[in-house]
Amino acid sequence: MEFTNLSQAIARLEELEATSAAYGHAMGILSVDASTIAPAKSAPGRGKTMEVLSSVVYGLVADPANLELVQYLEAHDSELTDLQRRQTQLLRKSVEQLSRIPQEEYVAYSVLMNEADVVWRNAKTGNDFASFAPILEQIVAYNRKFSGYYNPNVPAYDALLNEYEEGLTTAVLDEFFARLRSELVPLIHAIGEKAAPDTAFLNQSYPIPAQKELTSFLMDVMGLDKGKCVLCESEHPFTSGFNNADVRITTHYYETMPTFAIYSTIHEGGHALYEMGMDDAYNFTSVAGGASMSIHESQSRFYENLIGRSLPFVEKYFPKMQELFPEQLAGVTALQMFRAVNKVEPSLIRTEADELTYCMHIMVRYELEKQLIDGTLAVADLPRAWNGLYKEYLGVEVPNDTLGCLQDSHWAGGMIGYFPSYALGSAYGAQIKHVLEAELGSLEQLVQEGRIGEITGWLRAKIHRHSAMFKPMELFEQVCGKFDPKFYTDYLKEKYSRLYDL
Amino acid sequence: MEFTNLSQAIARLEELEATSAAYGHAMGILSVDASTIAPAKSAPGRGKTMEVLSSVVYGLVADPANLELVQYLEAHDSELTDLQRRQTQLLRKSVEQLSRIPQEEYVAYSVLMNEADVVWRNAKTGNDFASFAPILEQIVAYNRKFSGYYNPNVPAYDALLNEYEEGLTTAVLDEFFARLRSELVPLIHAIGEKAAPDTAFLNQSYPIPAQKELTSFLMDVMGLDKGKCVLCESEHPFTSGFNNADVRITTHYYETMPTFAIYSTIHEGGHALYEMGMDDAYNFTSVAGGASMSIHESQSRFYENLIGRSLPFVEKYFPKMQELFPEQLAGVTALQMFRAVNKVEPSLIRTEADELTYCMHIMVRYELEKQLIDGTLAVADLPRAWNGLYKEYLGVEVPNDTLGCLQDSHWAGGMIGYFPSYALGSAYGAQIKHVLEAELGSLEQLVQEGRIGEITGWLRAKIHRHSAMFKPMELFEQVCGKFDPKFYTDYLKEKYSRLYDL
Repeated sequence: MEFTNLSQAIARLEELEATSAAYGHAMGILSVDASTIAPAKSAPGRGKTMEVLSSVVYGLVADPANLELVQYLEAHDSELTDLQRRQTQLLRKSVEQLSRIPQEEYVAYSVLMNEADVVWRNAKTGNDFASFAPILEQIVAYNRKFSGYYNPNVPAYDALLNEYEEGLTTAVLDEFFARLRSELVPLIHAIGEKAAPDTAFLNQSYPIPAQKELTSFLMDVMGLDKGKCVLCESEHPFTSGFNNADVRITTHYYETMPTFAIYSTIHEGGHALYEMGMDDAYNFTSVAGGASMSIHESQSRFYENLIGRSLPFVEKYFPKMQELFPEQLAGVTALQMFRAVNKVEPSLIRTEADELTYCMHIMVRYELEKQLIDGTLAVADLPRAWNGLYKEYLGVEVPNDTLGCLQDSHWAGGMIGYFPSYALGSAYGAQIKHVLEAELGSLEQLVQEGRIGEITGWLRAKIHRHSAMFKPMELFEQVCGKFDPKFYTDYLKEKYSRLYDL
Repeated sequence: MEFTNLSQAIARLEELEATSAAYGHAMGILSVDASTIAPAKSAPGRGKTMEVLSSVVYGLVADPANLELVQYLEAHDSELTDLQRRQTQLLRKSVEQLSRIPQEEYVAYSVLMNEADVVWRNAKTGNDFASFAPILEQIVAYNRKFSGYYNPNVPAYDALLNEYEEGLTTAVLDEFFARLRSELVPLIHAIGEKAAPDTAFLNQSYPIPAQKELTSFLMDVMGLDKGKCVLCESEHPFTSGFNNADVRITTHYYETMPTFAIYSTIHEGGHALYEMGMDDAYNFTSVAGGASMSIHESQSRFYENLIGRSLPFVEKYFPKMQELFPEQLAGVTALQMFRAVNKVEPSLIRTEADELTYCMHIMVRYELEKQLIDGTLAVADLPRAWNGLYKEYLGVEVPNDTLGCLQDSHWAGGMIGYFPSYALGSAYGAQIKHVLEAELGSLEQLVQEGRIGEITGWLRAKIHRHSAMFKPMELFEQVCGKFDPKFYTDYLKEKYSRLYDL
């Protein structure tokens, strides 16, 4: 395609962006539907639809004419708006990446993802790793192959990491995790010597209709506009945003574990606030959806932990809990609840882990992903390796694969290289808190005074509104300066030393 | 496109069918989402996506190459399978119809439909016809214009009717409705002289969680496979099927009107059994989705009325109701429930109407649609005309537009010419019952003996499995011979004479 003038090229860019956004929306809704309300036997039919749409999207993005468009726009760089310039950068990135994946592999992979979700669910439910292993082998093989398409000049796992966090490397993560390990493991051991807080009152029946009332209340406390964000149920909680006025979050209700729905709702609600805080101008463009997975996790874990697991926040929702569960919480205080939701206990399930041991769960996955991708670990040996690392890092025995290597949906969803984002996001969050407090004052006090809207307003102005207008590290440095994990380890040491009277 | 051999042409046909099915699925899911769980402010974003996808579908179907494909396939008619032949017929029909609508009108209309749904909902909730009138004017204008594209050689309303029921004309309907009127109005009057059955026990609080248990139970009673069919909630109940293993039905729960959820679930469940009963071979083809709206309604209303409102069926679910609502139904018998759900009472709301006065509601809409389309009724005058006909046909005063001309979603959804299908479907159902009973014995006895699966099996073999392989009247005549509304009026006269001891 030849362009005779810039406005023609920009019109083409905008058309391409709008079309991609529409397919993204349609496939996103199909995927949300699959994980929430779709009947169990509907997967094959949805697979066919995904196959057709993926193939269209592939053709749309991998079209060689897009590279000409990018080159034309780049040649007119000084005449572009900031948004157009960023769209051009992102288009170059996706055209180059996608056009390196042969179309039939791209489509086959999309179909595999649809199938994998169902197989993984059944494997998890039935504690049947063997039934999932063949499909996981294919997923690993595809990711290894794709990594070469993304960037053949770096180790495969680095190329995958880069998909979720531009510029992130194994070298950086190795150092980051080593630091967490050296700082946090002694702390976890010291806490192990102390008396554990009482959590028995949480292990009773908390009827689900009342839990639903509570999560709805928490959405209000967080300032989530229910006209733009709805909460549904799924096996594994997630957030899916289509534009800044249409975000879906999910949770899962466990009758005898009310904290799961509470904290997953706050976590996903944090993702949703990020999506909804984006400037309108970025709707339906490739700039939508946030800067990166780590920045996204920095927001979700900010609300979940720095706000949601703080004493003043627990004090805010505790009266509502007592109203909804008067018998279960008779004689329990907000302080006891605060201690219970911050109980440090090396355990089996990442999503239920306390804030302190959480990173150990990530480290297990990080180590295993590296080995799966570099070929030093066979899929068949994954359960054994998983169980070994849980013993080594967390000191726990894994009784079965349902509670072990089948617990997360990520690998079934093809997301290899994503897990480190959670740890990195947590660390980013602590540093963001530091900067926020320098400007607005103590976070705990803001929460205590019911000023969560102000916190969100600040995060919106600094982070949310920009979405992917900046590269993640660039955005982070604009707000916080150079990344330093010390803020995170300091925060954890201070919080847990106080909690456990160390 | 030139075809060098038949298998190439068939491959192209199959590709086109699969692609159309994928877009239909994606847009269908977006639409189900919009009516069920989507947040209120998500409509504009969904509108953009619908605009893009509609435009793609338009280009796909209206492609002039499709006409060449059809001609090539028609020239090889004797070598086609029955399915390929029918696909070719349906492709000719849709290419001709769609390519007569200019693309920009087709796309603008799709966008209007998305917008109209929201405007109609708000207008209905707020009893604000004036806010809906401008959009309804556009919908009427579009339909009038489209009718000329569909078939410029017949009156506009006939062309629209034909969209929902091939070959149906105003002349046929005028005669059909005149007959219903002459046979049923005296019956309704005679019943008006009789004492009304007691329904007070239904106007109590029936908590919604227990109503949900009941609708789930009814799905089981009907033999609806929940692995293929899920029940959701929406303002107005509907069925949306994507393939024979993925059907969505919806209901609406009213705390003080449990029969609404009961009978709308059975009604939509009837549609779902039809969709799920289709032969696998027709999945993802244009043959999927049923023969016509009337045939679809003949099935939904068969389950709702001929089965669901029969004494043996009420006897089947009544013990479950008593278990769920012991206080509300203390001292009530199944016979009282049977009489209550068959109470004849001229009323305001079509979807809550009894089986006998139901057709009067359809006649109101039929008369008004004819006048809106031929221009003898202005949209602004619709409420007045609506209220006048309700007085004339049903003898009731319409207190406001929420309970009047804003009650149904059809016009907001662009479905003008659809309503007669409901009445026709009911009449078809009575004749189908007659044939079924000649082969399997009394329907009431089958229901009493819990043999609903056999009834569904018979309907499946005769009707469901064929989907749109035959034209609707052709299919009907294969099963029942020539259509005769007498079966319907006889059925109603017999049922209600017995019920009211006439």
